Amino acid sequence: MGLLEDTIGRITPSDSEARLRARTRLEQLTMPHWALGRLMDLAEDLAAMTGSMTPPTAGKTVVIMVGDHGVADEGVSLYPQEVTAQMVYNFVRGGAGISALARLNSVRVVVVDIGCAADLRELAERGEIVSRRIGVGTRNMATGPAMSRQEAIRSIEAGIEVAEELAPSTDIFGAGEMGIGNTTSSSAITAVLTGAPPAVVTGRGTGVDGARLSRKIEVVERSLTVNTPDPSDPIDVLAKVGGFEIGGIAGLILGAASARKPVLIDGFISTAGALIAHKLAPAAAHYMIPAHRSAEPGHRAALKLLGKTPLLDLGLRLGEGTGAALAMNLVEAAARILTEVATFEDAGVSGAVE
Amino acid sequence: MGLLEDTIGRITPSDSEARLRARTRLEQLTMPHWALGRLMDLAEDLAAMTGSMTPPTAGKTVVIMVGDHGVADEGVSLYPQEVTAQMVYNFVRGGAGISALARLNSVRVVVVDIGCAADLRELAERGEIVSRRIGVGTRNMATGPAMSRQEAIRSIEAGIEVAEELAPSTDIFGAGEMGIGNTTSSSAITAVLTGAPPAVVTGRGTGVDGARLSRKIEVVERSLTVNTPDPSDPIDVLAKVGGFEIGGIAGLILGAASARKPVLIDGFISTAGALIAHKLAPAAAHYMIPAHRSAEPGHRAALKLLGKTPLLDLGLRLGEGTGAALAMNLVEAAARILTEVATFEDAGVSGAVE
Repeated sequence: MGLLEDTIGRITPSDSEARLRARTRLEQLTMPHWALGRLMDLAEDLAAMTGSMTPPTAGKTVVIMVGDHGVADEGVSLYPQEVTAQMVYNFVRGGAGISALARLNSVRVVVVDIGCAADLRELAERGEIVSRRIGVGTRNMATGPAMSRQEAIRSIEAGIEVAEELAPSTDIFGAGEMGIGNTTSSSAITAVLTGAPPAVVTGRGTGVDGARLSRKIEVVERSLTVNTPDPSDPIDVLAKVGGFEIGGIAGLILGAASARKPVLIDGFISTAGALIAHKLAPAAAHYMIPAHRSAEPGHRAALKLLGKTPLLDLGLRLGEGTGAALAMNLVEAAARILTEVATFEDAGVSGAVE
Repeated sequence: MGLLEDTIGRITPSDSEARLRARTRLEQLTMPHWALGRLMDLAEDLAAMTGSMTPPTAGKTVVIMVGDHGVADEGVSLYPQEVTAQMVYNFVRGGAGISALARLNSVRVVVVDIGCAADLRELAERGEIVSRRIGVGTRNMATGPAMSRQEAIRSIEAGIEVAEELAPSTDIFGAGEMGIGNTTSSSAITAVLTGAPPAVVTGRGTGVDGARLSRKIEVVERSLTVNTPDPSDPIDVLAKVGGFEIGGIAGLILGAASARKPVLIDGFISTAGALIAHKLAPAAAHYMIPAHRSAEPGHRAALKLLGKTPLLDLGLRLGEGTGAALAMNLVEAAARILTEVATFEDAGVSGAVE
């Protein structure tokens, strides 16, 4: 049995007894009932994911999966493909949006080259990035499958391996990405798996509008017509209209879930990876925490399919794991509420009068 | 001229030139245009408030104004009045919700007794709280004015003094409160200043429902009928249906604004204080950052009057400054984006293709 099947087999639902124990404690804290709202829901979730009344949060890691997309040839982005690799250098030097937010919240950033078009060997040799290359970017999905079925499986397995390597030093994972063209791929995946029309789930990405947005929608439609991905087979969907980094994110999530670790899903593209993971192993959704509501319109449909409401809604549309790095602070807050707030009995505070 | 008039006279609009300089830099950062959405709006705001391209964030202080309310006699809360003082002990021992969240985000908590019904002298003598007592709780606003006009002015001036004492060691203020009965007072203030009917701006507070919620609405209506506060005179509104801690929050905001320091407004009650401050000095609103959208229905009307959208929406309804302590992380994030992210030119990243 391969790593993918093996990992899927090890994913179990979250622990409902630990959830109940956490709820019992949260209901006794010195505050009106459930007065910290969604942070208390999240505290319950963390207890259920980890099986612990003191969910650890010290090790916070955002993984940035980096891959290029053949569909960039269709002019679907405002930026040239070379920006993918240029941004990897920016991550390594600490000058990107994710760099600043990760430093603020003491989050480690791990950059994984899973299929950048440019040669990043020098960075991998210096240990500044992790190399798990499946190929030199995907092929153009507007004219045929983005990758082979075997490459799709390998991209997911690469993500699982990254999760397994990082798990001993990670309490909370964050899934992020970089790849010019990847909102186009994510729109195609979201359209197939949610059944929504491409026009509804395709947005401005890096900021295209007018004629270029119409062209982007047309490219998504063409990729579905040309490839006819099978909505019941997530590997087929990933192979035909996905990306290496999206497969890597799906694998990272499966690996985190199999280790019973929470994983923050960043934005629209990371959620496309989450849709693949969820389709492969529905219980993996128990370990997912959507970080924020992306400005991309397709994100809404994807979150609805997962049955999740994100923590933040700040109009972010950058990717790189920036929303995940920000939301790490809220995950820590939820854990602190469970572990550090006194109960009415401990503190000698009078309870509600009936 | 008194401290209040003097402080109001020193409040100036935020710096539109600094805002423009910040915008120019933010538009050159290595990301699609304005891709960090509301964090970039906030970064601009911070530059405008402080007049600096490197808005400082090291000194973060949440002030918890503590006061009791005579209207608690009307049975408007699920909790007895003694809980106000019991929670002060909980703050001092570090066992409250705010204690946990403030520790997480390196926020100093300063508790100010501005009119608790119980005797807290021992805590003040030990320097564990600040004593600025205006009275032994307010009088019952359902039968007459909560306080005199002179007490209302003194409560605001006490808040200004607290802000002035803390300003040298504070870069970002947060306004929080504790006081059994204070959602009832906040609903009355919000009704007067927004013109909304009491039934629309009165909510469950600590968790009342059914008959008790109806009674709470009736108490708010009665307080307005009995006292006829003048909507054009915020001191009159505060005196007749306010609370000492709400006056203290108004003063804290005016003091922060006059020192050109950002101030996070926690939830519904802190926003009632913000409405008083805004009515006294409209430009004070330039320095206000609403931390979160409270579960209290009146918060919406109050925020609309201020023209503000909060950063977080997590169903919080605890007070104590908990939302402000959480949102401190987002304010720091905004400042880091302005100061730490590289520009396209610095990083050698290709810009958008036109």
